[in-house]
Amino acid sequence: MGRALITDLYELTMAASYLRRDMTASATFSLYVRGLPSDRGFLVAAGIDDCLDYLETFQFDDQDLAWLAHHGFPLETVDAFRDLRFTGDVEAVEEGRVVLAGEPLIEVTAPLPEAQLVETYLLNQVTFQTAIATKATRCRLAAGPIELVDFALRRAHGTEAGMAVARLSAIAGFAGTSNVEAARQLGLAASGTMAHSYVQAFPTEADAFRAFAEDLPPPYTFLVDTYDTLSGVETAARVVAALGLTDRVAIRLDSGDVGELARAARDILDQRGLSYVHIFVSGSLDEYLLEDLASSGTPIDAAGVGTRFGTVADAPYVDSVYKLVELGGCPVMKLSPGKETLPGAKQVWRTEGCRDVLARRSEAAPGAAEGLLVPVLRGGRRLRGRSTVAQARARVERDLAWLPAAARRIRTPEVPELLQSAALKELAASTRAAAEGGVPVVHDA
Amino acid sequence: MGRALITDLYELTMAASYLRRDMTASATFSLYVRGLPSDRGFLVAAGIDDCLDYLETFQFDDQDLAWLAHHGFPLETVDAFRDLRFTGDVEAVEEGRVVLAGEPLIEVTAPLPEAQLVETYLLNQVTFQTAIATKATRCRLAAGPIELVDFALRRAHGTEAGMAVARLSAIAGFAGTSNVEAARQLGLAASGTMAHSYVQAFPTEADAFRAFAEDLPPPYTFLVDTYDTLSGVETAARVVAALGLTDRVAIRLDSGDVGELARAARDILDQRGLSYVHIFVSGSLDEYLLEDLASSGTPIDAAGVGTRFGTVADAPYVDSVYKLVELGGCPVMKLSPGKETLPGAKQVWRTEGCRDVLARRSEAAPGAAEGLLVPVLRGGRRLRGRSTVAQARARVERDLAWLPAAARRIRTPEVPELLQSAALKELAASTRAAAEGGVPVVHDA
Repeated sequence: MGRALITDLYELTMAASYLRRDMTASATFSLYVRGLPSDRGFLVAAGIDDCLDYLETFQFDDQDLAWLAHHGFPLETVDAFRDLRFTGDVEAVEEGRVVLAGEPLIEVTAPLPEAQLVETYLLNQVTFQTAIATKATRCRLAAGPIELVDFALRRAHGTEAGMAVARLSAIAGFAGTSNVEAARQLGLAASGTMAHSYVQAFPTEADAFRAFAEDLPPPYTFLVDTYDTLSGVETAARVVAALGLTDRVAIRLDSGDVGELARAARDILDQRGLSYVHIFVSGSLDEYLLEDLASSGTPIDAAGVGTRFGTVADAPYVDSVYKLVELGGCPVMKLSPGKETLPGAKQVWRTEGCRDVLARRSEAAPGAAEGLLVPVLRGGRRLRGRSTVAQARARVERDLAWLPAAARRIRTPEVPELLQSAALKELAASTRAAAEGGVPVVHDA
Repeated sequence: MGRALITDLYELTMAASYLRRDMTASATFSLYVRGLPSDRGFLVAAGIDDCLDYLETFQFDDQDLAWLAHHGFPLETVDAFRDLRFTGDVEAVEEGRVVLAGEPLIEVTAPLPEAQLVETYLLNQVTFQTAIATKATRCRLAAGPIELVDFALRRAHGTEAGMAVARLSAIAGFAGTSNVEAARQLGLAASGTMAHSYVQAFPTEADAFRAFAEDLPPPYTFLVDTYDTLSGVETAARVVAALGLTDRVAIRLDSGDVGELARAARDILDQRGLSYVHIFVSGSLDEYLLEDLASSGTPIDAAGVGTRFGTVADAPYVDSVYKLVELGGCPVMKLSPGKETLPGAKQVWRTEGCRDVLARRSEAAPGAAEGLLVPVLRGGRRLRGRSTVAQARARVERDLAWLPAAARRIRTPEVPELLQSAALKELAASTRAAAEGGVPVVHDA
């Protein structure tokens, strides 16, 4: 299946109109997030690499073209689509960079029809992946010393989303994922425990724990809450002692007040000389609960986070847009109330003092600032391969250290201010004045 | 890529243990939703057909097996996995049925390792699709006379989710989708307007509207809020009159107070004799806003719903579980606090009086009741093909009519009570007594 029709119909109709009129001037579109979801002090940019793969291979296949021909698209448009590839240039932040609202994540510069056609796919990938990468990073920040494992596959919005969640959890610093295919494809640590059904499939809980240890190599994480949690802990302790298990052994709490149960379980295990047996918890965890558990010093070694993390339950999207900012070398802006855009191709300059400056791309760097947007595609070809998980992980870590502590807070974080360069402000003012003066915006600035 | 590793690691380790011990007794797992998300009076079951496709084609491929062999799985397990197919039986509700919390959507009966291995995929598909189908149906109920179009592709959690959203919106009664690939695959109406960038790409708004009408066949939906909304309406009215457009013409409002703007736009259009020009709105719509717009008689003909619908922003998951309820012919239950399960294979009997009764599968139907669970797979083979969109659509419509009005409410709906048959209550009591008496549950009931 080709991917060119995985798009909104209007991208195709607009491109058809542009092609018919030879409106193929160079256009720059800027993809950014308009505002942060509540309780977010930053975003972790993700999905960029998947967008670049898409752009590099963009093409209508015969099936696509046949459908379009049968649904009102003129034959000249269908012919033009047949030969169309993405030939443009792209600047983007790298996968895993920490960014703020208003900062472009991707800027596409290409002949207008090409730049328009790719909008929907780019928004789709960046929107959900950035929402998930940000949530994953917040969970990791909140959990402190507690190791995290991705348990989200069963609740993610499809298997594609489940694969992305696993990758993004690794980028955020999770220790493993339950998703075996993701572990295989990305070289992550696959992690798992046992289900209640396993315990139920044996005559007794102890039989189940023993069987698991006999049949499989470690690690062993015994699920203790199928019948009565603390009795389950006692049973696990007896099995661990009887079989002399010492290598990577844990119990798992999956219901009730896991903080309170973890303390009681720790006592039981310690009293039996099993201080090396870890405590793993799961069940409706998110960054808020993780912060409460971690900050109260609850004896929890690791946690599986699934549903609320993998669906980004409190904010399942970011307010991403893909806006025309330059056409034929002239800056463009939109004036819709509450949805204004800033004109022109841009750069984000990042300085040591926790300050980002949104600037025109053509400006010189202020001092020793780092430009967040880097060239990633030229003439439709990628300049480098996909980031590895390790590379993206290192970016998250480095950028989090740069971020002010107040922006990293889980609850009521302070959003760092995004400054605008003088040249950008001037351009916005002149473009607006031209637009409001009735002078056509595109042809005036 | 095979799909057998798109699963949680523990499914594989548990299956390995079962196979090693020849624990291949027939097991029944029940997939159901534990409780409804807030503001939900019902669920629309979806994802069932995708699960059946998966079960029918379940198989480990060579790559899968190689990975498992290199990651600690015993060679005998890898060999057993090589030959493993899903050979079981499945009862399920049909795609698009309206169901309640606690009612099984799927019951899988198969040799224990097979039934266990498929858990994660089944939960993944049913969970997100049911959440989305339910949201879509609520939007459709709320919108009353306003036609709805799916605009969610750019904010869905990946393209797989975007495709599912389009299909489920059609099942819920949406008039079209912006997702062209979904329209192509499913024979849906593809629907689109124009973007702000299109308006900006022309010297004036009027030029853009004229060009669109010249270059493309109808329908024409002119986006009027790029600069000033009501001026945009005037401009659209002039272009419509000048070009004599009469076939499927609309204006689109995408910012500001769309209810108020729709009234003003309607006045402008009517004063110019353009009462046939429709008003289309979009922007942050969900069932709550749609209900407000529809119930206040705002002159809106159609609406595009995207972000909040496609991500199910207020409740992006349902609390789905896949629980062992019978093993080797004996009922099984789990007693974890707050997470108890009811034992045994089940049926849901639906009667005319808006009552559902959860019963043992072996019970006779009470009177003229309809059984919601029907045989869909026998010996690993489907008994019929996938439901068409039209078939699933008809089920939603029929079941909504059955549902009490209070359950269909958008705000604070009343959840219909799910009754339990006497035989099921009796079985639960005896199974619980056996478990709490220390008698092994599996072998006693």
